[in-house]
Amino acid sequence: MRMLDIILKKRNGGELTSDEIDFFVREYVAGRIPDYQASALLMAIYFQGMTSRETADLTLAMAYSGETVDLSPIPGIKVDKHSTGGVGDTTTLVVAPLVAACGVPVAKMSGRGLEHTGGTIDKLESIPGFNPFQSIGDFIRIVKEVGLAVVGQTENLVPADKKLYALRDVTGTVEHKSLIASSVMSKKIAAGADAIVLDVKAGSGAFMESVEDAFELAQEMVNVGTRVGRSTTAVITDMSQPLGMAVGNALEVKEAIEILKGERAGALKEVSLLLGAYMLYTAGCCRTVEQGREMVEEALNSGRGAQKLKEMIRAQGGDERVVDDSSLLPVAKEVIPINARQEGYIYSLDARSVGQAARLLGAGRSTKEDRIDHRVGIVLYKRVGERVEKGDTLAEFYVTREDNLQEAIDTFNRGIIIGDQPPQLRPLVYGVVTREGVERW
Amino acid sequence: MRMLDIILKKRNGGELTSDEIDFFVREYVAGRIPDYQASALLMAIYFQGMTSRETADLTLAMAYSGETVDLSPIPGIKVDKHSTGGVGDTTTLVVAPLVAACGVPVAKMSGRGLEHTGGTIDKLESIPGFNPFQSIGDFIRIVKEVGLAVVGQTENLVPADKKLYALRDVTGTVEHKSLIASSVMSKKIAAGADAIVLDVKAGSGAFMESVEDAFELAQEMVNVGTRVGRSTTAVITDMSQPLGMAVGNALEVKEAIEILKGERAGALKEVSLLLGAYMLYTAGCCRTVEQGREMVEEALNSGRGAQKLKEMIRAQGGDERVVDDSSLLPVAKEVIPINARQEGYIYSLDARSVGQAARLLGAGRSTKEDRIDHRVGIVLYKRVGERVEKGDTLAEFYVTREDNLQEAIDTFNRGIIIGDQPPQLRPLVYGVVTREGVERW
Repeated sequence: MRMLDIILKKRNGGELTSDEIDFFVREYVAGRIPDYQASALLMAIYFQGMTSRETADLTLAMAYSGETVDLSPIPGIKVDKHSTGGVGDTTTLVVAPLVAACGVPVAKMSGRGLEHTGGTIDKLESIPGFNPFQSIGDFIRIVKEVGLAVVGQTENLVPADKKLYALRDVTGTVEHKSLIASSVMSKKIAAGADAIVLDVKAGSGAFMESVEDAFELAQEMVNVGTRVGRSTTAVITDMSQPLGMAVGNALEVKEAIEILKGERAGALKEVSLLLGAYMLYTAGCCRTVEQGREMVEEALNSGRGAQKLKEMIRAQGGDERVVDDSSLLPVAKEVIPINARQEGYIYSLDARSVGQAARLLGAGRSTKEDRIDHRVGIVLYKRVGERVEKGDTLAEFYVTREDNLQEAIDTFNRGIIIGDQPPQLRPLVYGVVTREGVERW
Repeated sequence: MRMLDIILKKRNGGELTSDEIDFFVREYVAGRIPDYQASALLMAIYFQGMTSRETADLTLAMAYSGETVDLSPIPGIKVDKHSTGGVGDTTTLVVAPLVAACGVPVAKMSGRGLEHTGGTIDKLESIPGFNPFQSIGDFIRIVKEVGLAVVGQTENLVPADKKLYALRDVTGTVEHKSLIASSVMSKKIAAGADAIVLDVKAGSGAFMESVEDAFELAQEMVNVGTRVGRSTTAVITDMSQPLGMAVGNALEVKEAIEILKGERAGALKEVSLLLGAYMLYTAGCCRTVEQGREMVEEALNSGRGAQKLKEMIRAQGGDERVVDDSSLLPVAKEVIPINARQEGYIYSLDARSVGQAARLLGAGRSTKEDRIDHRVGIVLYKRVGERVEKGDTLAEFYVTREDNLQEAIDTFNRGIIIGDQPPQLRPLVYGVVTREGVERW
């Protein structure tokens, strides 16, 4: 088998066989196919696409390209969730403890922030002492003991994705649904969960800006999951404005804790409860989604969710007192208010601009080598559709240094539009894709 | 400027600016753009295409990526010709001396054989003592003295094409008209000729199999030549069967000499005279193509063409006596006849199969490192449309070793179809593309 023939076949619109896809992934990971042939194939895939079968084969070949996690020592159906990435998107910290509190083990591998979006691992590292890097043995032990662990991806999990993603990033082949689906799903499959709930974001702050694209990506991922025997559901949610009111690592942990303690409502709580309901339902722990919803609400209202978060923090070496006393979280002392320049209605509060502003303050990375400052970020006081008067505080910037401050403020302000009429509000949730089909809400 | 942005722009269907194209070629040749980004861009070009302007810009950027040849010390309009590659395609050895004999300097850089096609440099090297590798100074001196030199491309001519062609070859991005046109024309432009005649082959033995594709490629190349101020004409000729009766290096030189000496007629002579007429016309040395045709015919009939070939061979260190005594050419002693298996009409005599059979005998290379055996090859005795009886000799194989012989015979035989009806003959010439437009014959 020759890589050149595989490139030509795909370039000419052919469907690659399982053997051809396996050959490509195996030989590429082994360093026997050069990057320049891999990038040519990726660009050919960008233009010619892949069938569901090809996407599933690529996903499996990638999933088994390195170590995989065997969660079978943990009794019961293990459920995982994944967000395609957003701003103020702290659902994992809310929903994972709630689902675990309902008795469903959550063994979750998470990633770091990418571009303007945050990452759960970065957020958890703002908790003093918390260690997201556990051995596979400790990971499984913690899930068995606590019912919940959130860890960073181990070094040798899905090396094919690491290598391919790095290549796609510099060759203009990131934005293709089959490639995105195989990247996400290969990691979920290698991480060993039986059931997977995907939160596919749509809107300016998401990697898929259009709702239609988000549905198509969701469909691809559910197809792959179904084909490889993992019960998979995708919820398509809005990311035109930040989901939570906090953007930045310690600030987001603080907000998640407040939600778990019943001190806060809003979009982040709503989406978290919905994802939790689907996690329970997809794991087969309830007969209807509504029943799942009642279960997670009960876990929240009873305080069992907050308790579960404490247990996880302690098990992973962190200071669990942050749940009761958020002043133990490292939050910047200097706070700069951003005020409305005119009266009117918040017409747009662009998630990407807010994410970029937070990154400029130090909450995210511009290059892989950058270190995150867990203390900084942005807290919003308004959401799209709200009425503001001139001078009202729209947001507060938590800062530790001044060097990018003006650029951050300008970036933030470019994302805010205040109009004289209330805008038409976008729904928080656009719909759900399950193996049975697409439900548009 | 970032290479990634250039890839994305082309991937999304944009038109690259001259600066972007210059940046890509310059930085790629300098090794500051990695192969994997170059191959991604090439694949994006494969799908999105390039405008004539982009193709001309790419051609110029490539042409000036290394040394260029300044032919201005040679008085007069210098004319070059180029064939897109064929089998038994020995026109250069016939037409270059004829045109030079008409007083138009021919300063030609040629290449080696590629896949199943032959290369002029390989053929010339079968002449004892002949040295195709001259310094630029000697090249110009010989053209000034003799009016004709045929040399191999110097090492540092168009390094961008060397590097890009090697990459295209292994990434499935060879077959794109803009890329082929820029590859061919960059070399012609760097080689310094004022006027260029292209022989674009169509048919099974050509890189462009369909006549339509050949016309499109011709159009691309004439567009590029015209845009960069070189008078360019393309003749589209048939390559469904070998052009000459000999396929193999010394055998082809022998055939070309016989044509120049008036001892042979046929398709090779016809196409050579036509190309010669267009070379004179494109160089502005005659008022009509018909007049050019009379001039080259006169050069042939008077023996001045054969004389010019002698002068060139001598000037380049070769034994010019081969022109008078072809037994001085190294030709294999063992000759194996290939006979017709049945009676009928030659329906097909597939040029690619014949070329591959000759390559298997040692006349061409399977890998870059292979050495050519100048003595071996195939002499055809029949052409498409001719009547044969069972047992008639179709061809003779000139061989020096047995190891691939059976495979060569099988390959040859697979390319021969004998039918009970005479086939419809394909024209020898399909048409001409000039800056004024397309003429279909």
